[in-house]
Amino acid sequence: MRDIAVFSGSAHPELAEEICANLGVPLLPVEIDRFANDCLQVQLQANCRERDVFLIQPLVKPVQEHLVELLLMLDAARGASAARTTVVMPHYSYARSDKKDAPRISIGGRLVADLMVTAGANRVLTMTLHSPQVHGFFSVPVDHLHALHELARYFRQYDLSETTVVSPDLGNAKEAAHFARLLGAKVAAGAKQRFADDRVEITSVIGEIAGRDIIVLDDEIARGSTVLELLDRLREMGARTIRVACTHGLFADGALKRIGSQEDVLEIVCTNTVPVPAEERTEKLRILSIAPALAEAMRRIHNGESVSSLFEPN
Amino acid sequence: MRDIAVFSGSAHPELAEEICANLGVPLLPVEIDRFANDCLQVQLQANCRERDVFLIQPLVKPVQEHLVELLLMLDAARGASAARTTVVMPHYSYARSDKKDAPRISIGGRLVADLMVTAGANRVLTMTLHSPQVHGFFSVPVDHLHALHELARYFRQYDLSETTVVSPDLGNAKEAAHFARLLGAKVAAGAKQRFADDRVEITSVIGEIAGRDIIVLDDEIARGSTVLELLDRLREMGARTIRVACTHGLFADGALKRIGSQEDVLEIVCTNTVPVPAEERTEKLRILSIAPALAEAMRRIHNGESVSSLFEPN
Amino acid sequence: MRDIAVFSGSAHPELAEEICANLGVPLLPVEIDRFANDCLQVQLQANCRERDVFLIQPLVKPVQEHLVELLLMLDAARGASAARTTVVMPHYSYARSDKKDAPRISIGGRLVADLMVTAGANRVLTMTLHSPQVHGFFSVPVDHLHALHELARYFRQYDLSETTVVSPDLGNAKEAAHFARLLGAKVAAGAKQRFADDRVEITSVIGEIAGRDIIVLDDEIARGSTVLELLDRLREMGARTIRVACTHGLFADGALKRIGSQEDVLEIVCTNTVPVPAEERTEKLRILSIAPALAEAMRRIHNGESVSSLFEPN
Amino acid sequence: MRDIAVFSGSAHPELAEEICANLGVPLLPVEIDRFANDCLQVQLQANCRERDVFLIQPLVKPVQEHLVELLLMLDAARGASAARTTVVMPHYSYARSDKKDAPRISIGGRLVADLMVTAGANRVLTMTLHSPQVHGFFSVPVDHLHALHELARYFRQYDLSETTVVSPDLGNAKEAAHFARLLGAKVAAGAKQRFADDRVEITSVIGEIAGRDIIVLDDEIARGSTVLELLDRLREMGARTIRVACTHGLFADGALKRIGSQEDVLEIVCTNTVPVPAEERTEKLRILSIAPALAEAMRRIHNGESVSSLFEPN
Amino acid sequence: MRDIAVFSGSAHPELAEEICANLGVPLLPVEIDRFANDCLQVQLQANCRERDVFLIQPLVKPVQEHLVELLLMLDAARGASAARTTVVMPHYSYARSDKKDAPRISIGGRLVADLMVTAGANRVLTMTLHSPQVHGFFSVPVDHLHALHELARYFRQYDLSETTVVSPDLGNAKEAAHFARLLGAKVAAGAKQRFADDRVEITSVIGEIAGRDIIVLDDEIARGSTVLELLDRLREMGARTIRVACTHGLFADGALKRIGSQEDVLEIVCTNTVPVPAEERTEKLRILSIAPALAEAMRRIHNGESVSSLFEPN
Amino acid sequence: MRDIAVFSGSAHPELAEEICANLGVPLLPVEIDRFANDCLQVQLQANCRERDVFLIQPLVKPVQEHLVELLLMLDAARGASAARTTVVMPHYSYARSDKKDAPRISIGGRLVADLMVTAGANRVLTMTLHSPQVHGFFSVPVDHLHALHELARYFRQYDLSETTVVSPDLGNAKEAAHFARLLGAKVAAGAKQRFADDRVEITSVIGEIAGRDIIVLDDEIARGSTVLELLDRLREMGARTIRVACTHGLFADGALKRIGSQEDVLEIVCTNTVPVPAEERTEKLRILSIAPALAEAMRRIHNGESVSSLFEPN
Repeated sequence: MRDIAVFSGSAHPELAEEICANLGVPLLPVEIDRFANDCLQVQLQANCRERDVFLIQPLVKPVQEHLVELLLMLDAARGASAARTTVVMPHYSYARSDKKDAPRISIGGRLVADLMVTAGANRVLTMTLHSPQVHGFFSVPVDHLHALHELARYFRQYDLSETTVVSPDLGNAKEAAHFARLLGAKVAAGAKQRFADDRVEITSVIGEIAGRDIIVLDDEIARGSTVLELLDRLREMGARTIRVACTHGLFADGALKRIGSQEDVLEIVCTNTVPVPAEERTEKLRILSIAPALAEAMRRIHNGESVSSLFEPN
Repeated sequence: MRDIAVFSGSAHPELAEEICANLGVPLLPVEIDRFANDCLQVQLQANCRERDVFLIQPLVKPVQEHLVELLLMLDAARGASAARTTVVMPHYSYARSDKKDAPRISIGGRLVADLMVTAGANRVLTMTLHSPQVHGFFSVPVDHLHALHELARYFRQYDLSETTVVSPDLGNAKEAAHFARLLGAKVAAGAKQRFADDRVEITSVIGEIAGRDIIVLDDEIARGSTVLELLDRLREMGARTIRVACTHGLFADGALKRIGSQEDVLEIVCTNTVPVPAEERTEKLRILSIAPALAEAMRRIHNGESVSSLFEPN
Repeated sequence: MRDIAVFSGSAHPELAEEICANLGVPLLPVEIDRFANDCLQVQLQANCRERDVFLIQPLVKPVQEHLVELLLMLDAARGASAARTTVVMPHYSYARSDKKDAPRISIGGRLVADLMVTAGANRVLTMTLHSPQVHGFFSVPVDHLHALHELARYFRQYDLSETTVVSPDLGNAKEAAHFARLLGAKVAAGAKQRFADDRVEITSVIGEIAGRDIIVLDDEIARGSTVLELLDRLREMGARTIRVACTHGLFADGALKRIGSQEDVLEIVCTNTVPVPAEERTEKLRILSIAPALAEAMRRIHNGESVSSLFEPN
Repeated sequence: MRDIAVFSGSAHPELAEEICANLGVPLLPVEIDRFANDCLQVQLQANCRERDVFLIQPLVKPVQEHLVELLLMLDAARGASAARTTVVMPHYSYARSDKKDAPRISIGGRLVADLMVTAGANRVLTMTLHSPQVHGFFSVPVDHLHALHELARYFRQYDLSETTVVSPDLGNAKEAAHFARLLGAKVAAGAKQRFADDRVEITSVIGEIAGRDIIVLDDEIARGSTVLELLDRLREMGARTIRVACTHGLFADGALKRIGSQEDVLEIVCTNTVPVPAEERTEKLRILSIAPALAEAMRRIHNGESVSSLFEPN
Repeated sequence: MRDIAVFSGSAHPELAEEICANLGVPLLPVEIDRFANDCLQVQLQANCRERDVFLIQPLVKPVQEHLVELLLMLDAARGASAARTTVVMPHYSYARSDKKDAPRISIGGRLVADLMVTAGANRVLTMTLHSPQVHGFFSVPVDHLHALHELARYFRQYDLSETTVVSPDLGNAKEAAHFARLLGAKVAAGAKQRFADDRVEITSVIGEIAGRDIIVLDDEIARGSTVLELLDRLREMGARTIRVACTHGLFADGALKRIGSQEDVLEIVCTNTVPVPAEERTEKLRILSIAPALAEAMRRIHNGESVSSLFEPN
Repeated sequence: MRDIAVFSGSAHPELAEEICANLGVPLLPVEIDRFANDCLQVQLQANCRERDVFLIQPLVKPVQEHLVELLLMLDAARGASAARTTVVMPHYSYARSDKKDAPRISIGGRLVADLMVTAGANRVLTMTLHSPQVHGFFSVPVDHLHALHELARYFRQYDLSETTVVSPDLGNAKEAAHFARLLGAKVAAGAKQRFADDRVEITSVIGEIAGRDIIVLDDEIARGSTVLELLDRLREMGARTIRVACTHGLFADGALKRIGSQEDVLEIVCTNTVPVPAEERTEKLRILSIAPALAEAMRRIHNGESVSSLFEPN
């Protein structure tokens, strides 16, 4: 069997190191140069020939730099005769650009998928896409993981007998229900209404909240406004304790501090799909690693074993 | 300017005739043959050379027959040197297959989009896709219309002062809100919950229902189970009158008769994107024509005028 | 070496079972659902990852249903990371649409070949194409088998010392000659003339017929009109006994009963590339299985052994 | 309307000149250079930008030189921003490589079609392809002309009351029948039998020959062996006079002199799709020009008029 | 004739304004948004349907931001049914990545060309590519301009009777010779030697320098080290006056100030393909506008007139 | 591991035999036929199925014949189910057509690269391309070797203590410097000036020549004019002895005899990338074999070992 060769761009080297540690393979070196004219050059510094190459790069800030860097790595791997190149993109930020809600814009999630294929991507491993339809934007096979087992494992340390999982949005309530089942908890959901085109508000929460221990679950938290609105509703309805959980902790514009400063929020739990700068972290933040899950998926992809069975209910 | 040439497959010739009448151009003849081995042959019976060809075919029952027929027409138009071929597909049924919610299935909405492009589609004109992300499945330009103006024009015959528009699903509430604004009405939405993976039920309706004249609005009605459940809730909440409206009236498995037999449903309003067989119609059914809207969009596509401005608020 | 994984669409499951029995591998399960809107969904119910996938589906009646089903299976296999997907299509009915004999029609044999490649076909295994040029319609490798050895093995049970193989058409006489050589028989051919564009008739048979035991050999029999005309000529020329043989027994519009009811036709021999419904079978029908030949070709494709040598004269 | 721009490769400049004279447009200059390393360079020496470019080049001897020259011209026209490039290929010699009758060969007719598209061909205008299926090898629109009207016009100078048109091969008898209808003549055909794989012979001629004035009609004459064999049969059957006609007069290996030296052959008629060197011509040779027909087809392609109607029966 | 529609990305709006002023058409508005997750969204705010769209964007710093912005604009124009989209890229910085001088790197100039085509570029208008071979990296038509006429027009204000044009590099001496001919001047060139792989130095200048008025001409000046070295040689050889000229004034890392501070450098002349920040400009800097030349090329591309004749010697 | 299968076209069978001898595998037979219409047919006469196929064909005179032959072989290998097909093209003559130095010409080096990919090339192994940018013309992986080690090994038989390696052109001086380092020699370079567009002359040689033993090194020698001019300069500067070396010995128009007849040229050394006809050889010619280097590269490509490390300094 051809060997595995894992490289990382500059988006999240810590995650890449951890994945490789889990896989028991070295993270191979990459040299990234920036020329006087601001163009990038990326050199994969280990033999790729007939290897099963994995390139780890979440599309995090600065997104455009990391995207072009990834495209250069993909082309380099192809030119270096990789047998197969898999993009490991734990956070695909352009997935939010998934529809044409104004005339004469690009559907960025489709465009970036096509760019990756043009540059040489043979397959993609990603996590918790903003909408499941984005899977259909790719013309190459996609393995689409979620982080619910990691999150559940963490929360099982607590007494969950009075717990309700709350989705801020009925649209994502399916995932929250799945999560609640893993925890043996109840589920509830905020009803995010859009009575005008440009104004969204959470007018009510459907489900049992009063006196319950709440886990708010969302796919990602960026500016955090939806979560903050939801907290108001939960307080009005008499929640006992509140914890906030998500897969992608983007925490833009000081969101982390703003949520963390809410006294009744006991902790904020996310995974490490997106790096959180040390200076933005608060005491309430818990970052769970999805490196073992990604490593296991990569091992199965490499060995031709089923990935769908990886996250089946147990 | 090159001439327009409009053809129709066998899916919905009445709609095609009506579109052509609105455009003031003839519906050009097509001969469809079935060989002894059950293969189809389609002949476009008018010159296509350097013409701006439009092929009208909603993907309605029998879907597979109509799809292959369309693919043969597309290839025939390309081979006959059409300058451009636009698929006019008022109902794109495969749009419902928009995600991979089970392992080892096809995302049919993406596959069929690719098949149409392979066969020669240069652009697509469609109406009220099941999810807006499906737009991103196409690698050719798509004009995506909706039928809200047509529906609003119809309902304006009534006294709308006590009217509430109800979306069966919060996911589609944006469209209902848009529709309510057009009518000067209020909006409400059913909260469709999925506490288990396989069980969906409407547990509550958010908004003002008691004593109101209700217009239930959905994108499509197939088996009608969701609407019937919603009706139960509306009754419990004291709705005064009920009307049901949708864009795509698929009405499978006797749905039309089942909804029509509800005494408090005053009428069922849909458009003619999907043909409704005469024997299934009930007295309560009103079918509005979207032929003028499609014809106007085709005229603008042909003349290079803006289509997005066509359905802007007035 | 990666494993083999064999699936069947709904066109001819008996053949698929028999092929798998010959290969000594299980026929893996497929679930085919039809939604309320008449769209299909196909799930391959076994791991395809890095497998050598074979999808068995002759394009038989209802052709359009079976074609779309196959396209969905192909896309599903690709999305499920199959290492290679081979379409096993013992009867490719669209091969008859192989030329543009009228303006503004599609050459369906080319279009359907392109559709299969778009959906994910990496190679094709087929049998007795209507014209050999159809091979060139595919942009992926094709293995093109014939069934002459199977037919010859059957007829060797008889005394062949006075036998003449008759092709209804001089165009296909090469195959009849090949078959005659396998049997140690003589060969003859009908001269099918087209003095007008739309009228074909067999005006003469070239070769020795009087007092001979005749085997009529054609590639396929659909409505059977050509064979019936040929029988008239053979009788006039004093044939002693008559048997009819073909690869693809389509037998449309009661052809089987019509030929079977000819008293001097002793038997009708075809292969099982096309399923023959039990209610249409007659006592005179003999169906030979090409499952062993297809299985052997699949085994060789899987193992990288020569397929062309499989059917060389022995 | 964008202008027409016509260029010719070095294969048949006389034909190109004649086509342009018929069109009333200049034949634009092309410079073809051969470097010291034997590579070709072709410069189109007139503005192509947004023009409707036609490149005239039959694939005649030396075929490989003319093919590469054409591919370079196509790429040059694309790079020079031609609006559309049409290959005018009156004789497509690689069309004879239309099937895979031996393992591990290329189907050259398909490959060369793909090469032309890769190099920039947007459409093809050709004449009398060896088999009609070759049309399906192209992924771009093809206009496929025949020369029967030109041939018929020539023969109408004679008393045709006792004429029989003879096809050397029943496979091509349809074209001969069409031709006979144009002349008000009878039709007959040789029965070319292949009782062994490698031996073809004309064992009989079906139709009225004795005392008739014969016109032998074939699509092309290369080495001429088939025609010479047919002449023997016609003599045995008592033909009164014999004329030989074809579209493509390749006349390889002295075929022209060999047929011309048959005393009872009154004349040999072909068209100018292929240039016949002056030193090979005989007194009996008549070359009809298809330049007017090609020019008319080009005019219609340029103006978007129907080409299929060009050669309909009159 | 379809209308022209010109948009600009954020790389160089001043140049775009000036081009539009020269063309006499408005610069159409573009809205560029950055989401909380750092993804970009670009909206073309004027109808593109059937328009001849031009997108102006030199690939200048920050290169990756401007590249992705351009790709989003291209996709938006395609989705908005532009008839044709031309990228106007006065400076293509990735052209310097034109060979594989280390293993396992991307040839960025080819990759970025492919990305632009994937995103929807139908043609490219660019200026003074680093090496002429980069033209061959594009699969769409390229118009490749130079700025020599603009530079010559400027220098003709001086007495040029004692002028020598000096190329820092013999590799580019052809362009310097062309420029010298336009000025009626002499030409000389530095001999840049690479006796070791990693050390380049200008060891000599071939041509007449002593007592001459020197114009140093290069395609681009980035860090300026080569020019500074050349100045040392010119001084040693007794140059009378020195002026420095280039097409692309990148002036990285304070190059402008470093060259400008050389007392014997009278002026530094570049064009406006690259914006020079106000704070980096020196008194010695003269920026010539290539907007008129680009506008004229765009006018000719739009009207289908020859662009190659635009810069022919006059 | 799949087996290797090596075939050769008719361009240079001796080289192919030698490569196979080095690899220890048989050169598999190919049958090349030319039909009466001058079309070629190529049959690969050994099983290719799932094999790692290598096709050896330098693009030497007659270039067009060898190119089309190669394209037919590529298509045949693909159709015969080769697992991978590598073109081994020791001399890629069309690489000289690498820019558009006149309007409306093709960039032949890019076009031919695209044709090879269309025909089925999965990768290319080549040697000493005329410019390194040509690597970027290919959309498939390229291994680009040079012959400096072979040349160095040969010259080490001499006393090299007074040797200077001279590049005729500063553009290629990098390679000469590399070569000098391998030999422990000095380096010099001719300064080829182009003061007019169409006139190139070597006006000076930079470096130490007087009393030195000279090795002139160029990538290829075609008509030899540059070398002959350089010899004049070297004599004027007092060279002691002169040897001439190159990778590709094209030797067109009697170049070999013309250089060989220079009395002070002691020998002419080239490799066997291009066959030199026996009748053109002179006593002074030494042909070094690059078959071992190509064989080693093929072995590494087949085994997935690094090729870039093959020619690293030792």
